[in-house]
Amino acid sequence: MSEFSLIYTHFQHATAKHKNTILGIGDDCAISRIPPDCELVSCVDTLVAGRHFVFETSPHAIGYKSVAVNLSDLASMGATPYAILLGLSLPNHDNDWLKEFSRGIADICHQFNVELIGGDTTKSDILTISITALGFVKKGQAIRRDNAKIGDVICVSGRIGTASLALSYILGENGRCKHSNSINELSNHLKTALQYPTPQVALGQLLLDYANSMIDISDGLGQDLGHILKASGVGAKLYLENIPCIDELNDLPLDKKYQHIINGGDDYQLCFTMSQENFDKFTALYPNRIYPIGEIVANQGVDFFYQNQQVDFKIQGWEHF
Amino acid sequence: MSEFSLIYTHFQHATAKHKNTILGIGDDCAISRIPPDCELVSCVDTLVAGRHFVFETSPHAIGYKSVAVNLSDLASMGATPYAILLGLSLPNHDNDWLKEFSRGIADICHQFNVELIGGDTTKSDILTISITALGFVKKGQAIRRDNAKIGDVICVSGRIGTASLALSYILGENGRCKHSNSINELSNHLKTALQYPTPQVALGQLLLDYANSMIDISDGLGQDLGHILKASGVGAKLYLENIPCIDELNDLPLDKKYQHIINGGDDYQLCFTMSQENFDKFTALYPNRIYPIGEIVANQGVDFFYQNQQVDFKIQGWEHF
Repeated sequence: MSEFSLIYTHFQHATAKHKNTILGIGDDCAISRIPPDCELVSCVDTLVAGRHFVFETSPHAIGYKSVAVNLSDLASMGATPYAILLGLSLPNHDNDWLKEFSRGIADICHQFNVELIGGDTTKSDILTISITALGFVKKGQAIRRDNAKIGDVICVSGRIGTASLALSYILGENGRCKHSNSINELSNHLKTALQYPTPQVALGQLLLDYANSMIDISDGLGQDLGHILKASGVGAKLYLENIPCIDELNDLPLDKKYQHIINGGDDYQLCFTMSQENFDKFTALYPNRIYPIGEIVANQGVDFFYQNQQVDFKIQGWEHF
Repeated sequence: MSEFSLIYTHFQHATAKHKNTILGIGDDCAISRIPPDCELVSCVDTLVAGRHFVFETSPHAIGYKSVAVNLSDLASMGATPYAILLGLSLPNHDNDWLKEFSRGIADICHQFNVELIGGDTTKSDILTISITALGFVKKGQAIRRDNAKIGDVICVSGRIGTASLALSYILGENGRCKHSNSINELSNHLKTALQYPTPQVALGQLLLDYANSMIDISDGLGQDLGHILKASGVGAKLYLENIPCIDELNDLPLDKKYQHIINGGDDYQLCFTMSQENFDKFTALYPNRIYPIGEIVANQGVDFFYQNQQVDFKIQGWEHF
């Protein structure tokens, strides 16, 4: 079962060769050198066709995004990506599909200097992609969820709600698009947000000396910020009008707009907290790079404000079942 | 998508807590300390219901075996298992099923001091389990496939063909048993071979100072030995009557017997090669622990012998598609 030979030909020269790899694909296991001053950071994410992407998604985009969501998890710790292992279950051995899928994986791996060091291919009626990502972080430096401090500024790394809006335009029934051409009809920035999210790796590393807590926004800003709050035993005030978003969202009624922004998932921006002092230092060094959207308070839960008025809002992010 | 909260409750206290884990389940990533004199060894294996196990398999056995096949890959490098990450796709959120499944995972994790450090759960119509296993090996010591030497003794770690025979007794159509009770009607040693294979972790480590090359037998002895031969650029003579097997296999016609032994998979014994000198040393220290079944020769391919006569035999192991 440990064989990967079927698609080995597609991947063998496809991803970056990393200096820390002693033995890559081709044996029972890969062997890797961990930098002596570093800890290993690891995570796994699984994508299922018709659930995490519509069936009409191109194999290139599926490959790219499958890696992106994992690198986003590494980014949220401030880690430097190193390698991935790929568990691929697919209905049939379609060479053209595999070629495009592996090209998507290769493109993002080259972009972030990541090597595919292990893989397993099995037949299954449903396309399922399970990727484990490995990265390094200097000893004791990783940014966790459980260290938000009262008084911290809550920030995000970019526009929120874009992927959710894009999905609302195309999603029909049973994991399929409304029309076969729905994805192509999206404007470019929506298509990119949905299919080619950029993991915020560089920013994650910049934040190592500044942020107290961090998470990536995969399940929705409300739900993911909620994980920081719960792990840290604190609460938050969110100033809705401060959350950056694309213009199309501003054209929607407020409740719809903030449904996408607070409850929509799949943006893969970072949400993080830091002291006001660090916020001032960071924004002086890197202007317009991060967006303050609220503050950490002692009272648990999230209070939402819109133009200085407290408003009711129900957090309900991505449902796993 | 990075959430695991659904079954976190089942796993939180289920697996061994490992001294090298700085941060386990509950954040975007796990953080691990790698022993300074060690390299990281990693692998991934995916199991699909109806393909890698019959649908009637108990959730406890599915959990146990999913980890076992991965630890077997670590064993085949001589590595010490450390941790697993679990990508789980399942049709519905059945608490009883999850409890038994996680108990199976916990049992083998406790047995081998392995910690579950990461996980992701998604809904899918087909139960699919993708596990990444991490282990450690002393720098430069891992036993690879590509170092078999001409003159090496080829050995296996135990009886071969047992799982294949068990499967032939129970397998009906479409990934199901012949009868709903087929598994329970198997005698205990067959049931265990099929459902609860023991990864040869301790033996793998013992062989670190002795073996030149090693692989685990997942796809069939013939096919897996073939990987060693191909990677090492050598060939083999196999003495069929020397391959250890259970008594039931001896009752079969020779061609059927050796179909199970050479082409059957799922045994998770080790196949390895070492010099005659090391073989003598090892067997003096550890009698009856390993079984010599052939020798490495210069001519590529495998020549089969039965009672000093060369015989024709076609190697055809587990098919991935």
